[in-house]
Amino acid sequence: MNHQREDHDLAFLLQYENVAWYEDGAVKILDRRVYPMEERFVICHTHEEVARAIADMVTQSAGPYYAAAHGMALAAWECRESPDPLSFLRAVAFRLSHARPTTASRMEAITGESLERAEAALAAGKRPVDALQEYAVALMERRYRNIARCAGFLADCLPERSVIMTQCFAETVIGMLLRTAAEQGKTVRMICPETRPFLQGARLTASVAVQQGCDVTVITDNMPAAVLSSGAVDLFTSAADCICMDGTIINKVGTLQIALCASRFGVPYYVTGSPDRRKSGVRDVSIEYRDGNAVLEHLGRRTTLPGVKGLYPAFDATPGALVTGVVTDRGIFLPAELSQYFRPGDDDFPSA
Amino acid sequence: MNHQREDHDLAFLLQYENVAWYEDGAVKILDRRVYPMEERFVICHTHEEVARAIADMVTQSAGPYYAAAHGMALAAWECRESPDPLSFLRAVAFRLSHARPTTASRMEAITGESLERAEAALAAGKRPVDALQEYAVALMERRYRNIARCAGFLADCLPERSVIMTQCFAETVIGMLLRTAAEQGKTVRMICPETRPFLQGARLTASVAVQQGCDVTVITDNMPAAVLSSGAVDLFTSAADCICMDGTIINKVGTLQIALCASRFGVPYYVTGSPDRRKSGVRDVSIEYRDGNAVLEHLGRRTTLPGVKGLYPAFDATPGALVTGVVTDRGIFLPAELSQYFRPGDDDFPSA
Repeated sequence: MNHQREDHDLAFLLQYENVAWYEDGAVKILDRRVYPMEERFVICHTHEEVARAIADMVTQSAGPYYAAAHGMALAAWECRESPDPLSFLRAVAFRLSHARPTTASRMEAITGESLERAEAALAAGKRPVDALQEYAVALMERRYRNIARCAGFLADCLPERSVIMTQCFAETVIGMLLRTAAEQGKTVRMICPETRPFLQGARLTASVAVQQGCDVTVITDNMPAAVLSSGAVDLFTSAADCICMDGTIINKVGTLQIALCASRFGVPYYVTGSPDRRKSGVRDVSIEYRDGNAVLEHLGRRTTLPGVKGLYPAFDATPGALVTGVVTDRGIFLPAELSQYFRPGDDDFPSA
Repeated sequence: MNHQREDHDLAFLLQYENVAWYEDGAVKILDRRVYPMEERFVICHTHEEVARAIADMVTQSAGPYYAAAHGMALAAWECRESPDPLSFLRAVAFRLSHARPTTASRMEAITGESLERAEAALAAGKRPVDALQEYAVALMERRYRNIARCAGFLADCLPERSVIMTQCFAETVIGMLLRTAAEQGKTVRMICPETRPFLQGARLTASVAVQQGCDVTVITDNMPAAVLSSGAVDLFTSAADCICMDGTIINKVGTLQIALCASRFGVPYYVTGSPDRRKSGVRDVSIEYRDGNAVLEHLGRRTTLPGVKGLYPAFDATPGALVTGVVTDRGIFLPAELSQYFRPGDDDFPSA
């Protein structure tokens, strides 16, 4: 990965990232389904393989956005000899954006930008694949800058010594939050619910934390209320797959019940991300239902008798009333005041 | 198991029970840690092995009470040639009652009754082992009768077609509830959170339900709020390890957060069991903390990097304000009116 050689800060970040990158006719994606037990990469030689990797949750959190951007570069490579590359790329943009339903609109913002850049490259007589690879890298770098700001605002909310509870996986934000807090001389301890069935909390978030020398404790997903009611937690934080304009947070299933418990026991809940101007509320979002069999298995071993069914809503919707603040690259906003995030001239996803 | 040959109703019940029984110098306990993947029994040749089996959660829910009663019979066998069998049995009663801290007072009621019967047998020139074996069987039978009444009251709460959510494992109550509801011509569908880390919901409760032909769906422990908020559930029910006189429910960790969500989304919560006159509130109960490593494993496979810690509170405390009704063998009581459960002449655990 040549980015790492060029930029030390980027190297730090990639360590904790859902990495995906285009190189020599293939997109390589770190397989977060088996991490940290195994460090393995999925190599995609076609955009269809990238779409399937996204749907199969090879990469999670922000990973699918990068995979989609790099997948567009791969698609440009695939159609390099086509007489009508733009038609091909338009179809690919749709396929990649809709690999998972809940995040489709933010994905479309990214693949749409790729399309525009491909068009401009063609008009200028340049290779679209170079333009799209450049855009994918620029997208990651812009996102890192925005997350660094976001992590800084969140670190400012922490007292000298704090215990924070997370939900699911917010890799870069958590990594940067811990680094920023350490720079400020603050001590942070983390409590991570394990996040069944994929165990993002146990496998990924706790790994980011322990690799940075943070004191981190994993609990099962039925324990947040017990821990929050004990008064041991100062702050609950999660990322979001979608932040609606009315303050509703769409995030990994389980966020709703932790937020309810946090509210009940007086623990503030800060969400990191930026609002989605195309989503006024939960009605505008498709909640993904995944294969229920995943719920009936633990690392591949069945736990139930034949005939028992499984149900797997991947996300839930937390009302803005349970959210203390939305921590963005432009500061912290009340969930009822998200329209103030936008500035004249912004597109729908100014920080996408 | 000769009980099964003698009593068809008992056979029905034992199918769904945490069975433990004394026979020929040993207590046999169905190993619920591996059920239903394996049907295996732990054979205890000493009371100490019974105490360890209880502590290791070989048997759960009501199983430890039976194991303790039958363990007292085993102890009577162990000390059959002792010059001072009562001293030995008193020490065993303490050991078995305190194998797990949270249920010690109800366990003491059972082992105390065993002690009295041993004393009476000795005074009458009879073998204590026979008296204690007889008491252990009578205890199970009395409990089945009480649970049958309890299940009847709970079944009366259900509409013609209903969806109920459970928590952890309430074997006999659930088995009898489903049978009673079927006799009343009612259709019950069940949703069982899996109950990490031991998976009682997925492995045990869902097995009881599917074996009775019930439509049963397992979800992970981070999904109750998502399911309850959808309006799909008519009633939430759980057993309790302790029902305090002020209405506080001590039960498997996770009960508190489901009860909070049920209350928030207007779903009634019915607890089955009977109040404990020796526990005025949560202050009188020791919440057991088990080995945190259990949280970091799934069916024996580690899910976290070295250095990550685990925390495992086995129970949590749900305030009575979140409880719709306490369903006992004597009817349904409001959590604020539990003193009305008791009748003149009752001991501390009239239905123990």
